[in-house]
Amino acid sequence: MSRTTPLCQIGLIGLGVMGKSLGLNLADNGYKVAAFDLDTDKVQGILSQDEIERGNQDARIIGCSSFEDMLSQLEKPYLIILSIPAGKPVDIVCAKLLEHGISQDDIVVDTGNSLWTDTVEREKQYNGKFIFFSCAVSGGEVGARFGPSLMPSGDQAGWARLEPVLEAISAKVDPKSGLPLVNNEPGNPVKEGEPCAAYIGPTGAGHYVKMVHNGIEYADMQLICEAYQSLRTALNLTPKEIAAIFREWNKGPLNSYLIEISAEVLDQDDPITGKPIVDVILDVAGQKGTGLWTAMGSLEIGSPAMAVTASVYARCLSSLKDNRIKASGILKGPAVKTVPESEKQAYIQRVHDALYCSKICAYAQGFELMKTAGEQQGWDLDFAAIAKIWRAGCIIRAVFLQSITDAFNKDKALANLLMDDYFAGQIEKFQENWREAIVDGVRLGVAMPCFTSSLSYYDSYRSETTAANLLQGQRDFFGSHTFERVDEPRGQFYHINWSAERDIVRLK
Amino acid sequence: MSRTTPLCQIGLIGLGVMGKSLGLNLADNGYKVAAFDLDTDKVQGILSQDEIERGNQDARIIGCSSFEDMLSQLEKPYLIILSIPAGKPVDIVCAKLLEHGISQDDIVVDTGNSLWTDTVEREKQYNGKFIFFSCAVSGGEVGARFGPSLMPSGDQAGWARLEPVLEAISAKVDPKSGLPLVNNEPGNPVKEGEPCAAYIGPTGAGHYVKMVHNGIEYADMQLICEAYQSLRTALNLTPKEIAAIFREWNKGPLNSYLIEISAEVLDQDDPITGKPIVDVILDVAGQKGTGLWTAMGSLEIGSPAMAVTASVYARCLSSLKDNRIKASGILKGPAVKTVPESEKQAYIQRVHDALYCSKICAYAQGFELMKTAGEQQGWDLDFAAIAKIWRAGCIIRAVFLQSITDAFNKDKALANLLMDDYFAGQIEKFQENWREAIVDGVRLGVAMPCFTSSLSYYDSYRSETTAANLLQGQRDFFGSHTFERVDEPRGQFYHINWSAERDIVRLK
Repeated sequence: MSRTTPLCQIGLIGLGVMGKSLGLNLADNGYKVAAFDLDTDKVQGILSQDEIERGNQDARIIGCSSFEDMLSQLEKPYLIILSIPAGKPVDIVCAKLLEHGISQDDIVVDTGNSLWTDTVEREKQYNGKFIFFSCAVSGGEVGARFGPSLMPSGDQAGWARLEPVLEAISAKVDPKSGLPLVNNEPGNPVKEGEPCAAYIGPTGAGHYVKMVHNGIEYADMQLICEAYQSLRTALNLTPKEIAAIFREWNKGPLNSYLIEISAEVLDQDDPITGKPIVDVILDVAGQKGTGLWTAMGSLEIGSPAMAVTASVYARCLSSLKDNRIKASGILKGPAVKTVPESEKQAYIQRVHDALYCSKICAYAQGFELMKTAGEQQGWDLDFAAIAKIWRAGCIIRAVFLQSITDAFNKDKALANLLMDDYFAGQIEKFQENWREAIVDGVRLGVAMPCFTSSLSYYDSYRSETTAANLLQGQRDFFGSHTFERVDEPRGQFYHINWSAERDIVRLK
Repeated sequence: MSRTTPLCQIGLIGLGVMGKSLGLNLADNGYKVAAFDLDTDKVQGILSQDEIERGNQDARIIGCSSFEDMLSQLEKPYLIILSIPAGKPVDIVCAKLLEHGISQDDIVVDTGNSLWTDTVEREKQYNGKFIFFSCAVSGGEVGARFGPSLMPSGDQAGWARLEPVLEAISAKVDPKSGLPLVNNEPGNPVKEGEPCAAYIGPTGAGHYVKMVHNGIEYADMQLICEAYQSLRTALNLTPKEIAAIFREWNKGPLNSYLIEISAEVLDQDDPITGKPIVDVILDVAGQKGTGLWTAMGSLEIGSPAMAVTASVYARCLSSLKDNRIKASGILKGPAVKTVPESEKQAYIQRVHDALYCSKICAYAQGFELMKTAGEQQGWDLDFAAIAKIWRAGCIIRAVFLQSITDAFNKDKALANLLMDDYFAGQIEKFQENWREAIVDGVRLGVAMPCFTSSLSYYDSYRSETTAANLLQGQRDFFGSHTFERVDEPRGQFYHINWSAERDIVRLK
């Protein structure tokens, strides 16, 4: 390709759904982009779209046919954005770039859903060779195109150079209302407002925070599904009627993108059969891994992100479709009694409040997990900033995130969101309905793994004493595992000679 | 040491609580044992105990001062049992043994709580050098001394040689009643009955099955704790009164070692203050890792062992003691009303039934997990045999395991224990009480993570259709993740153009 145009500021590798959208977003914001994908159709795709949106004259994306070609189109030092599948592909592309001579001052930004420990390893591996930077992206296709939530982390010098680019393409929030400022019109990006991009911390931190974001997203989605299931089972409502309820809820504290799209889905008819689309969609949920990583990670460091894990298991159970079909003919449930008309509104309100309280717990768990991990990794995470950049652009965007921002602004070191005055007060206000919604579901036979695990979390968290004293007694009995005493300092261990005189021994 | 006695059949390395007990058990069963530990006090300890129990003349254990010394006392080919901490120590000792010339026909048996994947790796690593065999041991100190449950796996030739040894030292069960045959008198091992040792499968399988055993143990313990907590909160009973209830329960289908020792613990007063010991034990539960491994493993392969995971999280929450103390002053619960005298018996019965139904689910999940893992690994596990060897010797021993044995004897390929006639019938019979016990706990503010997750599992499992259809709709909406249709074969994926005309596209 002949050099007739000025050099590009940004190289973009990977032009799938997310890469293409990021490229067009960069172009909207005035950046010239050298775009490359092994699939030439994809290169052609982004070029055509750029021309449709901007006209031939103003097109800002240049298609590249090879790594070499792409690099030849770029200003130095290079700024290269990867939008490729997590795992091996990232290593392969980095190796290719090294082969083609990228060097110490060049930045390579991984925007995929990489496992955070891989990101940490990569930064070590490429240290001194080039700047490996990570920038986790949330918001799906539309977010990437018109303003995603961005979670960048890594080298400070890399951040200095990336900051204007990432802030430009990110979603924006009205600082007064805390609500997204949206314009999904090509060529006309939102310029004002607070950008949903903030430096998260050293290498790996951004991908970690994004992973937890996705874990919370799993929980939020599952909670909505449980609300839907309860309403549908008990009240015998149509999907459209539930969509209307969700739209109503979307005006209050549950206002969120996920509630909004759930209403859209429930309102949608199947273009083929005309039935509600939810009744046509097979109830076998897929997973891409980040929710699973969050669940496993929370177990590993002992931080009880129970709602995320309950959601992952709900997806596992959904995939046991054949067994469920078989079991449904064998296992009996309770008799389902439809709620009388006069009690419908109260029932709906209870489910609303249960969803809200459970959601507070799920988010409290997510932030607690990040806090624990951040302390272990020495990341010094700024939770108000994290909640802030989740207010727009990402899948879990919601007014709710503004309340979380406020909570951490009030107390940077808040141990748990539940202990913030506002959230503690909200749960106090709604907990009776939360409990009664669960009572309803338990009696009706509606599975509520996420509602109930959130309540267990709450009831455990507010208990000065749990039944773990009996558990420690059991462990000491069969395995001499010892125990500590409530009337002695921590770290002094005791054992009872259970099989002999049952005297007590203090261990050295 | 001069060679005045005949050579020993077995070398034993590691004389901690478990190793010492295994050594004395082997001696009881007529084996001569060459015992070695780096800690000479421990060597002296087992020798003294052997002499106390058998007298100087009949002592069967020889103390060794080094690897070399131990090997010089052994018949060839060597049979060496390791009872050392999992992880690095196993590799170090194997390397030492290789240095000292063990070879192809020698067997080294790892009886520790090794991670099963480490066991698989080790068998590969030592293949051709010596036979690395694993034999997971359950039963704690007393089990190891007088008859543990043993889960051996690895090389078939190794098994042929080990079988008589392991069967001799294992726990025994009365084949008629399914109950343990116990004699905790040194020098007088139980000879008759069915041994609780069965070849589990190829390398790693035994440690995997033992890991799941421990995961189930976590769940079983947590369930008992939830029952205790509910009884204590609602009925205002003393620990001793609850001990009496547990003893009553121990006569029925809940009969088990864990219920028995829970009663013992609840009955025990603190030798120092005279208060009930549970009220003196700090409610911060420790973990040794196997429950955590089970939980993480179940997530990894997508098998919903939710009760195990709920138990692990309950331990995590117990360890957040400082936060809980702080939160207990902030977070409000419901008003706790003590149940009136006239309703006490009914309340106790509901908790009993909830514990029983939840326990069925926890075990169903454990066996489902082993089934899934076994299929992935090609292990061809015999679940009737596994349930059989858990009837005695191990921590979860219970009459209940006889019913599980029966279920798998009726149907070797049973997809899930819940679908066995007997268990399905039991839950049908008791589920109303199960649900109402949860209703009680939810209203009282008693955390019941394991009761409720088990009920969610049950209610999900018996649902032909779950709310995962809405979830798939959400995923398709924001991430174009596609869905399958109920009216089309599996494997055909569809997508709705949500942001455009909302037509439906079938993917190639």
